[in-house]
Amino acid sequence: MALRAAVRSKCGLSAFLSQRSSCSSHGRVCVSPVLIAQQRNNSTSSKIKVDFDQSTGVAVMRLQSPPVNSLSLDFLTEFCIATEKLELDKSCRGLIITSSQPRVFSAGLDIMEMYQKSPESCAEFWRAVQEMWLKLYSSSMVVIAAINGSSPAGGCLMSLTCDYRIMADNPRYSIGLNETQLGIVAPFWFKDTMANTVGHRNTEMALELGLLYTPSEALKIGLVDQLVPEDQVLTTATQTMTKWLAIPAHARQITKSMMRKPTIDKLTSNREADIQNFVTFITKDSIQKSIGMYLEMLKKRKG
Amino acid sequence: MALRAAVRSKCGLSAFLSQRSSCSSHGRVCVSPVLIAQQRNNSTSSKIKVDFDQSTGVAVMRLQSPPVNSLSLDFLTEFCIATEKLELDKSCRGLIITSSQPRVFSAGLDIMEMYQKSPESCAEFWRAVQEMWLKLYSSSMVVIAAINGSSPAGGCLMSLTCDYRIMADNPRYSIGLNETQLGIVAPFWFKDTMANTVGHRNTEMALELGLLYTPSEALKIGLVDQLVPEDQVLTTATQTMTKWLAIPAHARQITKSMMRKPTIDKLTSNREADIQNFVTFITKDSIQKSIGMYLEMLKKRKG
Amino acid sequence: MALRAAVRSKCGLSAFLSQRSSCSSHGRVCVSPVLIAQQRNNSTSSKIKVDFDQSTGVAVMRLQSPPVNSLSLDFLTEFCIATEKLELDKSCRGLIITSSQPRVFSAGLDIMEMYQKSPESCAEFWRAVQEMWLKLYSSSMVVIAAINGSSPAGGCLMSLTCDYRIMADNPRYSIGLNETQLGIVAPFWFKDTMANTVGHRNTEMALELGLLYTPSEALKIGLVDQLVPEDQVLTTATQTMTKWLAIPAHARQITKSMMRKPTIDKLTSNREADIQNFVTFITKDSIQKSIGMYLEMLKKRKG
Repeated sequence: MALRAAVRSKCGLSAFLSQRSSCSSHGRVCVSPVLIAQQRNNSTSSKIKVDFDQSTGVAVMRLQSPPVNSLSLDFLTEFCIATEKLELDKSCRGLIITSSQPRVFSAGLDIMEMYQKSPESCAEFWRAVQEMWLKLYSSSMVVIAAINGSSPAGGCLMSLTCDYRIMADNPRYSIGLNETQLGIVAPFWFKDTMANTVGHRNTEMALELGLLYTPSEALKIGLVDQLVPEDQVLTTATQTMTKWLAIPAHARQITKSMMRKPTIDKLTSNREADIQNFVTFITKDSIQKSIGMYLEMLKKRKG
Repeated sequence: MALRAAVRSKCGLSAFLSQRSSCSSHGRVCVSPVLIAQQRNNSTSSKIKVDFDQSTGVAVMRLQSPPVNSLSLDFLTEFCIATEKLELDKSCRGLIITSSQPRVFSAGLDIMEMYQKSPESCAEFWRAVQEMWLKLYSSSMVVIAAINGSSPAGGCLMSLTCDYRIMADNPRYSIGLNETQLGIVAPFWFKDTMANTVGHRNTEMALELGLLYTPSEALKIGLVDQLVPEDQVLTTATQTMTKWLAIPAHARQITKSMMRKPTIDKLTSNREADIQNFVTFITKDSIQKSIGMYLEMLKKRKG
Repeated sequence: MALRAAVRSKCGLSAFLSQRSSCSSHGRVCVSPVLIAQQRNNSTSSKIKVDFDQSTGVAVMRLQSPPVNSLSLDFLTEFCIATEKLELDKSCRGLIITSSQPRVFSAGLDIMEMYQKSPESCAEFWRAVQEMWLKLYSSSMVVIAAINGSSPAGGCLMSLTCDYRIMADNPRYSIGLNETQLGIVAPFWFKDTMANTVGHRNTEMALELGLLYTPSEALKIGLVDQLVPEDQVLTTATQTMTKWLAIPAHARQITKSMMRKPTIDKLTSNREADIQNFVTFITKDSIQKSIGMYLEMLKKRKG
C-alpha cells in the first residue's frame, strides 16, 4: 500500500520509492548475534531489535526492516512475538517503539502480501495486522511511539495505538491514515482508533481525503502529542516514559482498559467478518489488476 | 422558526425581518426559461437553480427563494428532487450548495408550515425536513457548502450535512443551531450531526443556549472549515471540489458511509416516532398561540 | 483521596495538608441561626450555606466545610438535600456553586469514609457520591461552578456536572480527576462526564496520568470555560447566569436532558454493580493497609 500511495498521491511517500532501490545497495544496521543468556531481554530478529533495560523496566524496540519497515507477514509475526514476550515479562513496564531506518518510522502494510496470494494467505496476513493492533492497543505496558520519520497508513495506525506520540519536527515527514488515496478503505477499527485520538470530524475529513499531515499539522489536531528536534526523539521518549512509570501501575492499567475496551471489543467480536471483508475486497480481479499494473510500473522505474 | 428567532434573540436574524418586507418589492434573480434538452443537467425551478458542468462533473445549486431561502415544504420538495436527480446522474460527482439571496444562505425552516396546519400537514413537512437531511448526509457525491450569508437553524443543519464548509468572512453573518432561543428543541439528529462536527461539549453549550456564531467563532470550534472573502466563496468551493474529486471515489464513498452510517441509521429507524414527536409538540395550543402572537407582531411591523 | 494525592503526587494538593492542621485552629465562617420563615429559601447547615434570591431566581450555594470541603457522607447528604430542595422549588431556576474556604473549591472525596469501615458503610458512602452526581448532572436548573480554588478529584467531578465552569485565574490552583495518582481508578461515570467535556483523548491521557491542570491548561482543553481574576469569580458567575436564564427554560431543559441522558442512564442502570465494584476494591486488605500507612504518616506530620 505504501508504494502505491507514492505513485497516486504524491504526498509524502514518493521519497520511499527511490529509497527502496538505493537502500538495497546499502547495508542495514548490522545485527550482532546475541548470547542465549541475553535473549530473554534483548532479542534481535532480522526485522526487529529489542533492548530491554532491567534497571528501568523499559524496552526500546527498533524497527529495522529495510528499506521502509513495511509491515509484511514476517515483520508482523516477529513484532507480535516480541511484544508478547515483553508483555509477559513482569519486569518490563514500558515500551518505546522507534525506527532504525532513515526518514521513515514505518511505511505501512506490505503490498506484496496482497498480490497474487491465495485467500488463505490474505486472511493470514490480515489476522496478523489485527493481532498487532490488538496487542498494542490493549497493552498493559506504557507504550510510547518515538516517530523519527514518516508514518503513513499502517505506520500511523501503529503510532495511534500507543499511549503517547513524540514526532521529529521535520516538515519533510508526514503521518496519517492515507488509505483512501490508494483506493483502499481503512477498516472500522483504524477509524475508531483515529476518532478516539482526534475526534469524529478530524477523522471524517482525514479518512475521506486520505490526508497526510506534516508534524506541525499533526500536533495541531492531536494526531501526535509532542514535536521535538529529530535527534531528541528517543531521549524525550525516555524522559516521558519515566514520568508515566511514576504513576501507580495498577490504577493506570485499569484506566487504560476502561478507555479502550469498547473499541477493542468491537474488533474481537467482529474479527472473522473483518478478515472476510478484507479478503473479498483485496482478491477482486479489479483490485489485483490494479496492484499488478502498479508493480509493473515500479519495475520499470527501477530498471 | 427563523423569524421567531429574530424577535426573541436579537442575535443575527433581525436583519431578515426588514428584509422580508423590503425584498418583496425587488425582483428576484431573473430565471430564463431553459430548453428541454438542457433540463437533464441544468434545471431551474422556482426556488432552486442547478447548473451542472458535464466537463467537471460538478453541479452548483443556488438557493433562490426570496427573501431568505426559508425551508418551506415546496422548497424542500424541490430541493430533494433536484438532489436526487444529481445523485442518480453518475456523471455528477460533486455538488456545491450556495445562495442567490443577499446576506443569507438559508434562514431555516419556514414557520408558516407550522402554523394552523393539520397534524397531517405538519407530519408531511417534517418528513420533508428529514428527507433533506437524509439525502445530503448520505450523499455519495462530494457536497460542499458555499455559505455566502447567515445560516441559522435549518440553514446551519443543511451546511452541517456537507463534506466541507466554506463561509464568507463577514462578521455580520452568523451560523448556528439556535432553535432553543425560539423555544424549540433541535431534535436528536440535528444534535448528532452537530456533535459529529464540533464534539459533545461544544454542541451541549451551543444547543442549550441556541448560540449563533460569527464566522471566526464558527471556524474556531470547527463549525465551518474555512473562511474566505465574500466574493471568493464560490471560487474557493470550486477549487476545493477539484481536490476532493481527485480522491478515488469508491474508497471515499465507503469511508464517508462508514463515518456517517450510525447517525443515519438512528434517524431511519426512528423516523416515524420523530415525526410524531414533532407533530405533538408543534400542534400544542400553547405553541400555536405563541406562533400566532409572533406573526401578529410581524404584521404590525410591516404595516 | 485528596490527602493521599498530596503525598504521592506533589501536584497541587500538598498545600491542603498544612492547611488541614492550621485551619482547625481557625474558626470557620460564622453561621448565624436563621429564622424558620427564611429557611425555605435560605438554609445554613453546618457544611453548606444556601442563599436564594427570589427576585432573580438564583441560589448561591457556598461549600463551607473546613478545611477543604472534603466530600464526606455528611457533606454529601446535606448537599443532596439542599440541591433537591432547590430543584423542587419552581421559583429557583439557577444554582451557583462556590466555596467559602480559602484556596480550595473542594478537595474531593473524604478518605476517612473509606478507612476501616464496614462494607455497608462504604456502600452507603458511594451511593451518596453517585447521588450527588445524578442530582447535579440531571438538574433542570442552570448550574454554574464558580471555582475559586483548587478542585481535584471529586471536586473536579462536581464542577464537570455543571452547565458552565468559571475558574479563578490563579496559577497555584489546579483542577483534574487525579485519582490514578492515588492508586485509585475513576469509575466509568467520572470518565464519561470528563469525555463529554474534553473528548476521548484528553480524558484518556488525563485519567491514565491522573493529571491536575493549572487554570490556563484547563481552559485550553475545555475543562473549564472561562478564567477571571479571583475576586471576580462570583460576580462573573452571576452575570453569566443572567444570560443563561434568558433562554426559554423548557427548550433548554429538554436539550440538556437530550445531551446527558445516555450518560445518566448508564449509571442508573448499573448503579448497584458500581457500588459493589467500589466496595470490593476499597475493602481490599492491600488498599486498607495503604490508607492506614498514609494516615499514620499524616499524624506524624501533624505531630
